[in-house]
Amino acid sequence: MKVSETRKLYEMAAALCPLVQKGGGIFIVNDRVDVAKAIGADGVHLGQEDFPLADARTILGPGRLIGISTHNPAQAVEAEAGGADYIGYGPVFPTATKENPDPVVGVNGLRQMRARVRIPVVAIGGINAGNIAAVISAGADCCAVISAVLVTSDPQATIAELVKAIES
Amino acid sequence: MKVSETRKLYEMAAALCPLVQKGGGIFIVNDRVDVAKAIGADGVHLGQEDFPLADARTILGPGRLIGISTHNPAQAVEAEAGGADYIGYGPVFPTATKENPDPVVGVNGLRQMRARVRIPVVAIGGINAGNIAAVISAGADCCAVISAVLVTSDPQATIAELVKAIES
Repeated sequence: MKVSETRKLYEMAAALCPLVQKGGGIFIVNDRVDVAKAIGADGVHLGQEDFPLADARTILGPGRLIGISTHNPAQAVEAEAGGADYIGYGPVFPTATKENPDPVVGVNGLRQMRARVRIPVVAIGGINAGNIAAVISAGADCCAVISAVLVTSDPQATIAELVKAIES
Repeated sequence: MKVSETRKLYEMAAALCPLVQKGGGIFIVNDRVDVAKAIGADGVHLGQEDFPLADARTILGPGRLIGISTHNPAQAVEAEAGGADYIGYGPVFPTATKENPDPVVGVNGLRQMRARVRIPVVAIGGINAGNIAAVISAGADCCAVISAVLVTSDPQATIAELVKAIES
């Protein structure tokens, strides 16, 4: 039997969203277009197996952000053509965060895809202080990091290293 | 990591909905208000821990059905006051279909609740050919059955018994 987590997700998102927005941040809900719309989120992030982009746009209207996780150039081009506001792209490097990850695209793969889309690209997958400069050089507008800051004894120091690497 | 089933749900619902509607049936999606809206379903069914009713109405508009699972008179009254089109009520009898079911309301509990709401009531929980007449007599407009027709050697015969019991 299904155990619904919807209300928990809704309440957590409704509580976090105004805090993030008050701090100048952008609040994006994963997959649940209905939750994003209801709580006043800035947008929704969709995976390839999530809610379809076109329907998300219909429900959310033009004023909200829709991001799509993409894993090869064809998906990236399709997302832009379909009206996505940004794409995720990766995994750029091998990652242990996700089960059954898509094939690694590499820095060169990121650069080649970057030349084919104009919307912002959020690089993801195995990015850390040692490789983030190369990812930015390849044309990523943003980088998503999970392991780099979670699997470390000193997250604050790691974040400082990441920022330094980006600025350099 | 989350494994999204959203696209599968969306595609299954989008395929089934027109078939059900063509046959004169009403097609209701569980919990996912966004999916219900996008595929043109007749409505959505919400549990107590699902998406909030008021937000579902905002997203779906007045023309679609919203049903709420309720398990005590207070929830039933609240659902009606909140604009639900129908309620589920139960479990009327002990049920093995659901893990951690709410307390059994019984036929008398169903009758007492029925006197407090005007919207249609779908009784659920342990209903079978042997007790369905009592459930209808207590004021249920519809009955939901799962085990009665699934845990039987001859579903067709069991359905015929249920229909006979309702008509009697």
